[in-house]
Amino acid sequence: MTEVLKKLPQTKHPDLLVGFNKADDAAVFRISENQALVQTVDFFPPIVDDPYDFGRIAAANALSDVFAMGGRPLTALNIVGFPVGEMAPDILTEILRGGSEKIEEAGAFIVGGHSIKDKELKYGVAVTGLINPARILTNAGAQPGDILFLTKPLGTGLITTAIKKNAVDGDPVNAAIAQMTALNSKAAELMLSHDAHAATDITGYGLLGHAYEIACASDVTIRVFPNRLPLLQQALELAIPEMVPGGGRNNRDYLDGKVHFTDKTDERYRIVLFDPQTSGGLLIAVPEDRAGGFQRALRDNGLPDRQIGQVEPRNEYPIMVA
Amino acid sequence: MTEVLKKLPQTKHPDLLVGFNKADDAAVFRISENQALVQTVDFFPPIVDDPYDFGRIAAANALSDVFAMGGRPLTALNIVGFPVGEMAPDILTEILRGGSEKIEEAGAFIVGGHSIKDKELKYGVAVTGLINPARILTNAGAQPGDILFLTKPLGTGLITTAIKKNAVDGDPVNAAIAQMTALNSKAAELMLSHDAHAATDITGYGLLGHAYEIACASDVTIRVFPNRLPLLQQALELAIPEMVPGGGRNNRDYLDGKVHFTDKTDERYRIVLFDPQTSGGLLIAVPEDRAGGFQRALRDNGLPDRQIGQVEPRNEYPIMVA
Repeated sequence: MTEVLKKLPQTKHPDLLVGFNKADDAAVFRISENQALVQTVDFFPPIVDDPYDFGRIAAANALSDVFAMGGRPLTALNIVGFPVGEMAPDILTEILRGGSEKIEEAGAFIVGGHSIKDKELKYGVAVTGLINPARILTNAGAQPGDILFLTKPLGTGLITTAIKKNAVDGDPVNAAIAQMTALNSKAAELMLSHDAHAATDITGYGLLGHAYEIACASDVTIRVFPNRLPLLQQALELAIPEMVPGGGRNNRDYLDGKVHFTDKTDERYRIVLFDPQTSGGLLIAVPEDRAGGFQRALRDNGLPDRQIGQVEPRNEYPIMVA
Repeated sequence: MTEVLKKLPQTKHPDLLVGFNKADDAAVFRISENQALVQTVDFFPPIVDDPYDFGRIAAANALSDVFAMGGRPLTALNIVGFPVGEMAPDILTEILRGGSEKIEEAGAFIVGGHSIKDKELKYGVAVTGLINPARILTNAGAQPGDILFLTKPLGTGLITTAIKKNAVDGDPVNAAIAQMTALNSKAAELMLSHDAHAATDITGYGLLGHAYEIACASDVTIRVFPNRLPLLQQALELAIPEMVPGGGRNNRDYLDGKVHFTDKTDERYRIVLFDPQTSGGLLIAVPEDRAGGFQRALRDNGLPDRQIGQVEPRNEYPIMVA
């Protein structure tokens, strides 16, 4: 799809501070000297069985793009494709209830939406937030010496694939859902108050795919310590070829030659590093002298607090693992 | 669908000046004393054969919601469902080219979007505009004595159904496409400069459905003169039961008992009055003393200029025809 969109002339305007030609999470459009809109849209078919959970995940996932840039979500429009007549209307009610709950938790408001009769169920939201144009966090801005943090455990692609294959149940599923429905709001607040240099949220391209975007935009090398990564329960056990979703294979192909693994990197960790995430955490580059305080703040808020990597001067590889 | 959405708790907030609990075209959310966001989203499967035309129509249709309230479109997010692998990628390129062209013509900017692999092709946009909170035009506000204008000819539902049934070709199709791709920007500008009391854009509920919303919100009766309506070429000829789309039947059922027809109202005109429109014109209520000037301004800009109805004190019927 990206390929098709690339053929279009890119929008250029002095007020379009962050556009969709960059690989950033959301677009930023200035509307006054100290106010800009930060906007994104995302929707997809169900990845979990429960419609209420699906609604919460889809909304948290879309909101995350706004948080990742340091924005404050303000309004949301529901986007619905529903198999009218084939599926009980209560299912849609539950999806929308889940979505609304997360929008509200984010301090934003559902102001409208559009629903269409569709063969396949899908749901998502278009989110608009406000942001201070002087304080936008993007993929660019990471500096050698910065410490990297990841605010949610990895493995949602593997777990949701395993759900579809009935290969996982119970606690690991609940834990994955809890993570996917969690907002990145607190992590975003903390990264702003600790003067982070760069941030992105981890979604379909996986940890390494999004790290690669930071590496390119910031012209640095990202070094990742796989043994320090926060992981979902059962993620390593499910990190086997049968559970790798299509996106995981695409990510690995795409990054071929761009990542340097030490020989010691276990295959299971490699799978996790390429695993596409839904509603993943924020990958945040914090200046070294703020890292300690940031780490404590993450811990105090119950968020993963390990230093999962560091930013180095650009070398032959954009990404180094271990 | 509307029924499902009604079950949800309605968002209430002092800054949500126009919400989706009202039947208005777009939501309005105040972000400062003299600035508010006006937001809407719309997408649907192709209604014409040419992908470029489809893109232009879908974008013009979504933009219309912002114009109808007196807003100025600012940003747009593309929403795409595409049968990847089954349809040539060039088709999507053409759709997006058409959409971009209309967004640009409206003075707005495509800032991003989301595309998903889908069984059925669909396209649309989420549009955000800016509006002065003191100058919002809604369904409410029409006053007895106001004169009604309709800024595009009716009949797009009949024509697009006839296209699908291969019952029409050539000029009438081209004329319908020209109308559906035309922006309501000029009409919106003129209604603001002539102090219109109320406005809405005519879409799926047809002329009478949207007139009914004005009648309810403004607590008035709307009288429509069918013989003064601007009509698309071939619209009357195609106003036969075989060409009435499902939406046209739904509109007629919904308004049963709410519309008083004189016995003289020809069945073909009745069909046209209920015909669901795509990217229809604005229905505008202008104070009587401004109607002459407004009419001249419409004419000078090549827009339909006939007085198609008037606003009366509320009587037994919300809508009177002739």
